[in-house]
Amino acid sequence: MKLGRVAGTVVSTISHPAYDARPLLMCDLLDSVGEDTGDYLICIDTVDAGSGEIVLILDEGNGARQVLGDPQAPVRAVIVGIVDQWQVDEETIEAV
Amino acid sequence: MKLGRVAGTVVSTISHPAYDARPLLMCDLLDSVGEDTGDYLICIDTVDAGSGEIVLILDEGNGARQVLGDPQAPVRAVIVGIVDQWQVDEETIEAV
Amino acid sequence: MKLGRVAGTVVSTISHPAYDARPLLMCDLLDSVGEDTGDYLICIDTVDAGSGEIVLILDEGNGARQVLGDPQAPVRAVIVGIVDQWQVDEETIEAV
Amino acid sequence: MKLGRVAGTVVSTISHPAYDARPLLMCDLLDSVGEDTGDYLICIDTVDAGSGEIVLILDEGNGARQVLGDPQAPVRAVIVGIVDQWQVDEETIEAV
Amino acid sequence: MKLGRVAGTVVSTISHPAYDARPLLMCDLLDSVGEDTGDYLICIDTVDAGSGEIVLILDEGNGARQVLGDPQAPVRAVIVGIVDQWQVDEETIEAV
Repeated sequence: MKLGRVAGTVVSTISHPAYDARPLLMCDLLDSVGEDTGDYLICIDTVDAGSGEIVLILDEGNGARQVLGDPQAPVRAVIVGIVDQWQVDEETIEAV
Repeated sequence: MKLGRVAGTVVSTISHPAYDARPLLMCDLLDSVGEDTGDYLICIDTVDAGSGEIVLILDEGNGARQVLGDPQAPVRAVIVGIVDQWQVDEETIEAV
Repeated sequence: MKLGRVAGTVVSTISHPAYDARPLLMCDLLDSVGEDTGDYLICIDTVDAGSGEIVLILDEGNGARQVLGDPQAPVRAVIVGIVDQWQVDEETIEAV
Repeated sequence: MKLGRVAGTVVSTISHPAYDARPLLMCDLLDSVGEDTGDYLICIDTVDAGSGEIVLILDEGNGARQVLGDPQAPVRAVIVGIVDQWQVDEETIEAV
Repeated sequence: MKLGRVAGTVVSTISHPAYDARPLLMCDLLDSVGEDTGDYLICIDTVDAGSGEIVLILDEGNGARQVLGDPQAPVRAVIVGIVDQWQVDEETIEAV
């Protein structure tokens, strides 16, 4: 799993029901100390994450389908939690 | 999922029925602000995407097979939607 | 899926029946205009691809097993088609 | 599988039961001689790994779910063992 | 699949039976002409590969579990064969 920061929503024409009523979010991928890596993933949100929040991203199709409760969902990346803080060696990083 | 821009069609000898009547598209992978990354994926199109359009790409075999409705399809990357716009921090990027 | 160019055969001691009578090919991975990327994949050939030919590579285990018709095959990368030509923006690239 | 070094815990709001009572650890990915690569994975711990320990990381959803004994778990990366030592060519590297 | 060169064994505390009596090997990943890439994978050995030998690596969980004959095995990378030689364009490279 990886850290990401929500940059905003993605508006698209996807018509698959797995995407109905669930926001699709542009998430910048972060490094282990919370800095932008320049890479990103577009994720389905399952935890009501807001713009700027640091989130835990699962990028794996079968697990993503289980989070959505939809074995047919054409998805790979989902936000599975909002990150509060983490430790890197002796330092604690607050996700604010 | 990732952003891509359709560059054109790929003509090949694939004889698997999953590829019949579905265009195979060369898609340039984009970064989070819509610039070319230099990388690409060849995707099966399921949404009638035209050359130059920005699309949402799912690069995962099991999900791709579910999009195609064919559990035997030898595929990994499919276009699942056409992107209209997205937000990166406070800015809205129009997919034109 | 990705573009590759067949560089030659790989001779190994694999004894799994999925590999019997099917050539194992060293394939250079190409970028979207057909240039070598420096990376490669070793693929099972299912389409009788010859050295120097540009091919479409599927790098995904479950799809590869379906191409081979062998649900037990320990494989990930297969050649699924020979590429004739493709378009990048307005230009057509012939696979010769 | 890859080598990682435990950097510390990650505190998040994940409510899926697969994450209950199992620490989520920030792990720096190491190269083959045990140096930091700058990349990381957030892993579920199944072996009681402590901060600073070198661990073996499995980054694959289906295997991770089997380690957890939970076919529904939305996970991809798990720590499957603590590394004692390894060899690189003629040299033995102790994981201390 | 990829080429690797066995660098040595990895000693760890993994207690899953899939790892019993099977060596865990540090394998340097090679490029298409047999040079080190600087990257590596830790693989379960199924073919009795010795230190320094060039091997074919399958890095895919479901296929790896089938090689081991254990549908529960928490593995992703296995050595599936020892490489004797391969061709890159007109040149034959001997794996010695």
